[in-house]
Amino acid sequence: MKRIVLLRHGQSQWNLENRFTGWTDVELTDKGREEARNAGKKLREAGIMPQFFFTSYLKRAIHTLQIAADELDLAWVPVIKDWHLNERHYGALQGLNKAETAKEYGEEQVHIWRRSYATAPPPLTLDDPRYPGNEERYSTLAYEELPLTESLKDTIERVNPCWEERITPKLHLYNTVLVAAHGNSLRALAMMLLHLTPDEIMKVEIPTGAPWIFELDDRFSVLKEYYI
Amino acid sequence: MKRIVLLRHGQSQWNLENRFTGWTDVELTDKGREEARNAGKKLREAGIMPQFFFTSYLKRAIHTLQIAADELDLAWVPVIKDWHLNERHYGALQGLNKAETAKEYGEEQVHIWRRSYATAPPPLTLDDPRYPGNEERYSTLAYEELPLTESLKDTIERVNPCWEERITPKLHLYNTVLVAAHGNSLRALAMMLLHLTPDEIMKVEIPTGAPWIFELDDRFSVLKEYYI
Repeated sequence: MKRIVLLRHGQSQWNLENRFTGWTDVELTDKGREEARNAGKKLREAGIMPQFFFTSYLKRAIHTLQIAADELDLAWVPVIKDWHLNERHYGALQGLNKAETAKEYGEEQVHIWRRSYATAPPPLTLDDPRYPGNEERYSTLAYEELPLTESLKDTIERVNPCWEERITPKLHLYNTVLVAAHGNSLRALAMMLLHLTPDEIMKVEIPTGAPWIFELDDRFSVLKEYYI
Repeated sequence: MKRIVLLRHGQSQWNLENRFTGWTDVELTDKGREEARNAGKKLREAGIMPQFFFTSYLKRAIHTLQIAADELDLAWVPVIKDWHLNERHYGALQGLNKAETAKEYGEEQVHIWRRSYATAPPPLTLDDPRYPGNEERYSTLAYEELPLTESLKDTIERVNPCWEERITPKLHLYNTVLVAAHGNSLRALAMMLLHLTPDEIMKVEIPTGAPWIFELDDRFSVLKEYYI
C-alpha cells in the first residue's frame, strides 16, 4: 500500500492579521509552530513515518514541514521544495487586509474572487515589488510561468504537473510521501486524488495542521482517506 | 567566479559531554544553535547568498544549515542531504566518553585512533544497535557502503565521490554552494580543494560555525580561501 499525506501549514502572521497572503513569504506565528508540532505528534502516534517530503518555496510551509519532521525525528528525510506547490497567487490583493479590500472593491466582488473557480483578482504589474519575477528565488522560471494573479483554476493547473512529474515518481520508490503546502495547492492534489468537480473542491476546507492521509493502491487510486 | 562554502556544525550535546559521536544522531546544544545563527549572520554581512545547499544525514548538521538558512532568509533554497557527508564513523567508540575510552584502551591507543590517517577504531558487530545497517535511514545502502568503523582515510574516500558526482554538477549550475557538515567530512573536501597530503590535512582543525569560503575558477581550482 502507498500513502500520501497532505499537511496544510499552521497559522501565519498574515492569517492572524487577516491579510491576503498568496506568494508573500510570511512566517508562522507561535500558534502556527505549535500546530506543526502537533501534526508531527499525530503522525508519530499513528505510526506514519514519511520517507519523502515535498513542500513549497514559502517558509510557512517549509517551517511547518521542518517542525513536524523534527517531532518524528525525520530531519534526515529528503525534501524537494517546488514553487508549483505555492499558495494561489492573489495578485494585487496580496498584502491587503480583507476588510479594507471589501471596502475598496465591495463585499460582493471580494466574495467572487475568493469563492469562484475561474475568476482571478486584479493582476500585478511587472514593476510591482510583489511580482515574483523580481525575486531571486523565481529567477529560473520562464516568463510564462510567473503569475501576475491566479484564479483557483490557474493554481490547480500549475499544481497538476507537479503531481505527474515529481510526486508520483517518488511514490513509486517510497511507500509514504508527505506534502506540506497551502490550502489551495493542496486542494489541487485532493481534487485530482478524489476526482472532484470544481464545485465540489471549492467547498473543501482543509484544516491547518491536521495530516490528511490518503491510502492508495499501486496505481495511486484512493482506497481510503481520513484526517488524523 | 564560483564559490563553495564549508560550514562545520556548532556544538552538539555529545561535544559538550566529550563523547565520541560519529554517526550517532545527537542534537545541537543551545550554544550550537547560536553558532549556527552567527554563521548565517556572517554570511549575510559578507553578502554571500548560497543558491544550493548540501548537508549530511545527521541532525546537528541539518539543523545548523536550517538555522543559518533562516538567518539569510533562504529557507526556500534547495538542499540535498547525503549520508556520504556524515561524520567519520567511530566504530565501537561511538557513545563512549573520551576519558573512559582512554582508561579502557590507554591514552596512546586513543591518540592513534584520533590522530592517525589510516587506523580505524575497533569495528562494530552487525548486531550492534549502533550499526547503521539497523537504521531505516541507511536501509537503501549496499552492505559494502555501511561502515562498521572508519579511519580518516576511509571517510575521505567515501566523501570524494560526493564531490565528483553530486557537488560539482551543482557548481556548474549555481555560483555559490554551501556544504553544512562535520569536521572530518569537510576535511575531505578541503584536502581535495587544497591538494593537501594526509599529514597536512590531519593538522587542519576546522572551527565550528565559521563559514570557510573557497573562491574557485571555472575549473573549480581554488583562487582564494578564507574564513569569515
